[in-house]
Amino acid sequence: MIIGIIGSGQLGYMMIITMKRYPFKFYVIDREKGPAGYIADKFFTTDKYKTFVDSCDYITFEFEHVDEKTLEYASSSGKLRPDIKTVELKRDRSLEKDFLQKNGFPIAQYEYHEDFESAFRAAKRMGRAVIKTCRGGYDGKGQYFINENTDSLKCQDSGPFVVEKFINYDYEASIIAVRGSNGNFQFFDPSFNYNKNGILIYNIAPLDGNNKMPEMAKKLMDKLGYIGVMGIEFYVTGNEILINEYAPRVHNTGHHTLLGSSISQFEEHILAVAGLPIQKPVLFRPSGILNIIGTSIDDKIKKILGMGGTNIYWYHKEEIRIKRKMGHINVFGDTFNDVNNKINTLMNLIYGNNLDNFIGL
Amino acid sequence: MIIGIIGSGQLGYMMIITMKRYPFKFYVIDREKGPAGYIADKFFTTDKYKTFVDSCDYITFEFEHVDEKTLEYASSSGKLRPDIKTVELKRDRSLEKDFLQKNGFPIAQYEYHEDFESAFRAAKRMGRAVIKTCRGGYDGKGQYFINENTDSLKCQDSGPFVVEKFINYDYEASIIAVRGSNGNFQFFDPSFNYNKNGILIYNIAPLDGNNKMPEMAKKLMDKLGYIGVMGIEFYVTGNEILINEYAPRVHNTGHHTLLGSSISQFEEHILAVAGLPIQKPVLFRPSGILNIIGTSIDDKIKKILGMGGTNIYWYHKEEIRIKRKMGHINVFGDTFNDVNNKINTLMNLIYGNNLDNFIGL
Repeated sequence: MIIGIIGSGQLGYMMIITMKRYPFKFYVIDREKGPAGYIADKFFTTDKYKTFVDSCDYITFEFEHVDEKTLEYASSSGKLRPDIKTVELKRDRSLEKDFLQKNGFPIAQYEYHEDFESAFRAAKRMGRAVIKTCRGGYDGKGQYFINENTDSLKCQDSGPFVVEKFINYDYEASIIAVRGSNGNFQFFDPSFNYNKNGILIYNIAPLDGNNKMPEMAKKLMDKLGYIGVMGIEFYVTGNEILINEYAPRVHNTGHHTLLGSSISQFEEHILAVAGLPIQKPVLFRPSGILNIIGTSIDDKIKKILGMGGTNIYWYHKEEIRIKRKMGHINVFGDTFNDVNNKINTLMNLIYGNNLDNFIGL
Repeated sequence: MIIGIIGSGQLGYMMIITMKRYPFKFYVIDREKGPAGYIADKFFTTDKYKTFVDSCDYITFEFEHVDEKTLEYASSSGKLRPDIKTVELKRDRSLEKDFLQKNGFPIAQYEYHEDFESAFRAAKRMGRAVIKTCRGGYDGKGQYFINENTDSLKCQDSGPFVVEKFINYDYEASIIAVRGSNGNFQFFDPSFNYNKNGILIYNIAPLDGNNKMPEMAKKLMDKLGYIGVMGIEFYVTGNEILINEYAPRVHNTGHHTLLGSSISQFEEHILAVAGLPIQKPVLFRPSGILNIIGTSIDDKIKKILGMGGTNIYWYHKEEIRIKRKMGHINVFGDTFNDVNNKINTLMNLIYGNNLDNFIGL
């Protein structure tokens, strides 16, 4: 069986390294060769999208912002999973929000605005708000925070925009769920996430007592006729949860499933895409990750492993750049706090007190 | 860091697929390209052994029966781990047995014989015995079983031989242990093994109540100044254990550590070889494997995964042959019996009632 992956980044890379051991082949397509391309059985540049699609049995994407021609041709071939409409909703934040609201999912109050000036005025009316570009924003790109003291702001992005009322949430959380080609549904334990400037720094699972998340995930995936793994991000305030956004793919807050779990999100995703039985995941121990952003760890491997219960994923990107996710460290422990403490130690080891420098603040 | 692996079989393959995610490169050398060679960062044929050795930082072997020139040059370079003497003892069963006996390890009564006739007479004297070629035998090759009714036997192998008194053991077991470059020692829970005709069919861990095994493993590895993972096989009769043999490498009875464990034998081995801190393994759940021998499973993947708690490793060998290990299935469960039941179901699915046909009996 040949599985095609559109996109050559670390998410495709982890799909391949965890699933290479199956009797499948993996083909990757992208504009340029990246981590997944280096280890694929075959790599195609996007001008060869027809050959790529025609030679695969099933096709998925590792990221929303991939080559549209390839995505569309894969979709028309009937091989694409999940469905292209799950990406189309993501191409424009306002479409995603309209969809979620229309279907009764709890989300923050928002407005759609064509131009930044009008968006800015709406934000000021809301008091504290975030203006986000409708298109192309991820990892905190294209976001503008407005509060009572913001008098004016220069926008470097083009519209349209959504203006989202600022939620003074207690913390962020997410759930990774999977839906099989036969409609079966499974989910991983939700995780607590720490983001800074829209970039995930670390997360820890299980986050107990949030049984509304699996329910919402099931409803959303059923509604979309979804096949594969989906990550859904939440704002949690007391007992209230709001959906921040969904990602129609494996997700950074699911990398902890690579250690201390019976199965990883990457394996579940490929099983679903290939029409194979998805598995009920068991989280054996509390588990988390710390992202390695904008730095190497070559001189720190001994210390990282010396802590015990740690594990390294390095994405083999060609160049280290600020804000760039270069790899991550998996951690497991006996309790949530145990994992939390280890992650704090690792934070200090990797970033010292200068995390902001590495994430471009 | 560049890690060299001598041998291109499935053991090297699993070292690479589990460790590719570290910021290392993997080079493989062998007479012909096999599973590990296909996924290595570079593959060398054995005529290029000097270039291979010179370009690696650390070198290990995935199997005892690998190219001797390469092994010797790697050893003289100081990069080889474990030490070459651990292989030299394995090149001749009588050397291994002499070494174990001299150092006080419990083993079965044995005798050394230059020719088969003399070995045969010794075997008859012992009553029930096994004659094994001193050199080249593994996976049940080069073994002759003699009992009271055996009047004569044709030998297809050349001597010398060891004659081993037949042990009417209750079952076979093994331990996988690891020793770091600083002398640190860790071990995985021992496993129950089912072999047929000298070939491992399945195994299940943990096998409780055998605390003599870790002790013996530590003593043996300390004695050898060993670096890396070692597998030690035992015969268990009541409370008595005898060492059958040791393997100076990752071992087929350690493949279960790929599911339901905090770390696999392959990762531990490479950590030790690369001078990095080895980890204390945690077996999260009872876990086992069934070897896939001499057959494909392409039409059975749905059923295998449909059982739940299962996982597939396919070695991507070019040709399916009788007796050849093509892959294995990992299984975890809530109890030892749970795993045992799943393995029985899988045995039936893969081999029906005809296991013997697949292992060349």
